[in-house]
Amino acid sequence: MSENRNMTPAMFIGVQGEGIISFGSGQPDLPPPKEVYGILPEYDGFRYGLIQGQENLRDALVKQYPLSTADSFVITNGASEALDLALRAISLGERKNGGGKPRCLLCRPYYYSYLPLVEYAGLEPVFTELREGRIVYEDFERKIKDCRVVLINSPSNPTGRVEAIETLKEIEKITEKLGVYVLSDEVYKDLIYIRKNYLIKGPHVVTINSFSKTFAMTGLRVGYLWSLDKELVRKVIEMKSHTSMNTSIIAQEMAYTATTVPKRYVEEQLRIWKSRRDMIYKGMVELGLDLWKPEGAFYVFPRIDNPRDFVWDMFHDYKVITYLGEWFGAPDRVRFSYALDVDKIEEGIHRVKKYLKTRRR
Amino acid sequence: MSENRNMTPAMFIGVQGEGIISFGSGQPDLPPPKEVYGILPEYDGFRYGLIQGQENLRDALVKQYPLSTADSFVITNGASEALDLALRAISLGERKNGGGKPRCLLCRPYYYSYLPLVEYAGLEPVFTELREGRIVYEDFERKIKDCRVVLINSPSNPTGRVEAIETLKEIEKITEKLGVYVLSDEVYKDLIYIRKNYLIKGPHVVTINSFSKTFAMTGLRVGYLWSLDKELVRKVIEMKSHTSMNTSIIAQEMAYTATTVPKRYVEEQLRIWKSRRDMIYKGMVELGLDLWKPEGAFYVFPRIDNPRDFVWDMFHDYKVITYLGEWFGAPDRVRFSYALDVDKIEEGIHRVKKYLKTRRR
Repeated sequence: MSENRNMTPAMFIGVQGEGIISFGSGQPDLPPPKEVYGILPEYDGFRYGLIQGQENLRDALVKQYPLSTADSFVITNGASEALDLALRAISLGERKNGGGKPRCLLCRPYYYSYLPLVEYAGLEPVFTELREGRIVYEDFERKIKDCRVVLINSPSNPTGRVEAIETLKEIEKITEKLGVYVLSDEVYKDLIYIRKNYLIKGPHVVTINSFSKTFAMTGLRVGYLWSLDKELVRKVIEMKSHTSMNTSIIAQEMAYTATTVPKRYVEEQLRIWKSRRDMIYKGMVELGLDLWKPEGAFYVFPRIDNPRDFVWDMFHDYKVITYLGEWFGAPDRVRFSYALDVDKIEEGIHRVKKYLKTRRR
Repeated sequence: MSENRNMTPAMFIGVQGEGIISFGSGQPDLPPPKEVYGILPEYDGFRYGLIQGQENLRDALVKQYPLSTADSFVITNGASEALDLALRAISLGERKNGGGKPRCLLCRPYYYSYLPLVEYAGLEPVFTELREGRIVYEDFERKIKDCRVVLINSPSNPTGRVEAIETLKEIEKITEKLGVYVLSDEVYKDLIYIRKNYLIKGPHVVTINSFSKTFAMTGLRVGYLWSLDKELVRKVIEMKSHTSMNTSIIAQEMAYTATTVPKRYVEEQLRIWKSRRDMIYKGMVELGLDLWKPEGAFYVFPRIDNPRDFVWDMFHDYKVITYLGEWFGAPDRVRFSYALDVDKIEEGIHRVKKYLKTRRR
């Protein structure tokens, strides 16, 4: 019975326990580079920092983003706050210009926070359906014309897919022409198995990024947004000065240290993720599940019959956390994060297999 | 000339520099208790924490709040985020019930973030004017009847005044009777010179607090809200799971350590604040300024002629940061934070005196 089971991601985030295997939150299991902790023994900061973020951290980011200066960045409480602030600032600006509720285009399936964030910000969601986990440009083009903002996410959580560079270039062109804001959530940009990341460009592009996935620093909460739209950056800083003030200064200093770590840390991480990807994908295919092969990030998103029963029973009877596809706008699927070591992935797949067998009886 | 001077608090927060004396942001100059840094050398956390906040920290807070359990708290990115989330969650709930824009009562002068936060949340501000920096209950009672939520702040930033316990009890009674949410911002509760704090109670009271002022941890960003309204707490957690996720785990651990520090730390701080209060109050009176004697917090709020010129000139010509009264809804005043050592307070007053003399010529 899945009635009266008001399941939400918030129930599972941060949940740990003896024997639990969590394919739930996108939580890398391997620790951050050790240098990140190196600054702690001498740390003595306590004062307010700049609302926009620490200068050393923003200066370090400039090297990764062409055409930018330290003024193009705002350091935030993870990518979540960057998204929330950008959506709220855009919505506020549009509503001050009058007119109805501004529309925001979402690509479905989407990361589960997108829809609540769009609604909290007072925007009206409009959807374009992904095909095989990727944007169908014709539909995108038709729908974007009525929107003031679009949220894209490549590599995608939950689909694990990466958009074709041609699609991203078409999106650059049409959104620049229409003057539409593009929020490009690229938190998995360093976890792509098939090519380098393509950084989308444009006068109203806002790139959302974070230290959480690349450097396994999820709990420390350091993200940022980057934009060449100076007016929007100014509005975000003004808003953040009231809604949360500076991002925690100690976490920012740890993030700064992460930017100084040799590139081979990220390369080694990618190698590990790829072997896990291969393993879970093979395991799921062997279970007979229908899924897309991940090209980036660390999620598989198979179709599952009776997904509410599946997620509930797997948690309560098999101590396996998985996430309901309906949270992501795909009610016939279940999301598995493979941010686990291979032994746990194997054990988890084993439990799924056992459960699916009981269903077939 | 004060035209084209678009001054905002965000311009001044975190600004430091050679020779600058900042009466600006409410930034304690003395460091946190040294124990707070004691956990850092061994610290190795990196995973997502519970959205609601770490259990050890919430358990420690239970001892300070009667009738509560660890479930009554949500740990946030400073008091700012606690206010923002509470206002947004209340507004969202009210708007789902239909009807017009819900009204929020503000006591004017107010902390400068209140008005933007109320507007961002889609609430309609309604004002009751303070008299001598305190609530006039007759006016409060008249206006509260049309409101769904009220924000109170005792000790008050910027007035430095503390509400009479009788007034707070009247507010408890009428808001409980009307079913109105009370957000009670008590971030200065440990900095009262005239009596102990009175913790306001009620089924829809949300107390906002923080480690920033009591333990001089502003830049680390750990605040919280406390409420016996379980439904509201649930909504805030749900919202935070999308807007920022857990509060930085390392900052929470530092805050937890602060709760274990002997009480004499807070008593010693209070002694220092009181002597500074006495000094700046005397200095301002000697300058002939009209102001209220602070009873809590660390602000004085004198009347100043041409306040925009004053704030601009003091910063540009005298390297003294002060805050415009108009940000607080009091356009004839200027706010001075006295979170400075006595030498700097003395030098700052000296510069103000010099400047005021040039004006009188």
